[in-house]
Amino acid sequence: MERLVKELAKMPGIGRKTAERLACYILRLPAAEAGELSGAIDELKKNIRNCSRCFGVAVDDICEICADGRRDDGVICVVEEHKDLFSIERTGHYRGVYHVLLGCISPLDNVHPEDLTIEALVDRIKSDPAREVIIATNFNVEGDTTALYIQKRLAALDMQGVKITRPARGIPQGSYMEYLPGAVLADALESRMTF
Amino acid sequence: MERLVKELAKMPGIGRKTAERLACYILRLPAAEAGELSGAIDELKKNIRNCSRCFGVAVDDICEICADGRRDDGVICVVEEHKDLFSIERTGHYRGVYHVLLGCISPLDNVHPEDLTIEALVDRIKSDPAREVIIATNFNVEGDTTALYIQKRLAALDMQGVKITRPARGIPQGSYMEYLPGAVLADALESRMTF
Repeated sequence: MERLVKELAKMPGIGRKTAERLACYILRLPAAEAGELSGAIDELKKNIRNCSRCFGVAVDDICEICADGRRDDGVICVVEEHKDLFSIERTGHYRGVYHVLLGCISPLDNVHPEDLTIEALVDRIKSDPAREVIIATNFNVEGDTTALYIQKRLAALDMQGVKITRPARGIPQGSYMEYLPGAVLADALESRMTF
Repeated sequence: MERLVKELAKMPGIGRKTAERLACYILRLPAAEAGELSGAIDELKKNIRNCSRCFGVAVDDICEICADGRRDDGVICVVEEHKDLFSIERTGHYRGVYHVLLGCISPLDNVHPEDLTIEALVDRIKSDPAREVIIATNFNVEGDTTALYIQKRLAALDMQGVKITRPARGIPQGSYMEYLPGAVLADALESRMTF
């Protein structure tokens, strides 16, 4: 029991208390159902790999998104993590494909460009130029650094017709001016757009 | 006591409980200090008016911002309410002047363009053309409607050299993709910017 609680408590957002509650739930489960749960975990680790093209979640060599003929593979959205890909998929508004970096450049955490899938992205663009690369890394210092690094690497390829973009940065739709953090407000006023 | 609690509870964000706590605090105050408080309220209402130029908060006919020679009156930032002006001032990054609409167009609440200070803004631009008008209404339906209405009114003046802008709309700086509401993410991907 203690071993399970410890393992559960390692998961993000799960503290000791919640881990104990979950362990008690598992304790009460019929053996078959508990087996389902542990089996699902084993199977996930056995069968799921990174897509060899975009590094997204894949069962086969190529993920479902890359394999989907209805997706526009002329537009590549670069994200830091799988969870970012899922967030964008959930909006239901994006029809292009992805490239998952599996992290972001962060010298403090000893993560350098070569630890990410940036080289693979460069190779991918070289062998199959896209119309547009959207760099959708997080809008914080590490994300911005990573975006800038990738932009420079891609620009150095000097490929005509590959547009490099970033999602709009500014005030989120639905917001009230008065509740916005000063930095966001200042940033959005700075980079204002013509009507 | 009951009368004071009732008056206090009318204030935004102050419920019955908090009102009682505040009333008890006032009850314990020395008479002089309580007089200071009530006096400050009376004086505010007696001496504070809307600036005759920008409708900001003013003691004299013209507010401190309009009267400040170091402010750039070639740039006018249009906001819905005084509190929005204070939010932008707090960032310390804006050096232009303001125009306070005293609300936003909202037919459901029976607020129409003529209930706001839009006419005064048009007259102001006509008699003293600015280089730029930043329409910083809220980024929600009413704010967007108001912004569009003002943009059309100003465009109809056909004044050369008056640029009409809006603060950038998109993903706030410092955000993580995974925690953004889907609508914000979709909006920012839609209106992406070239690097």
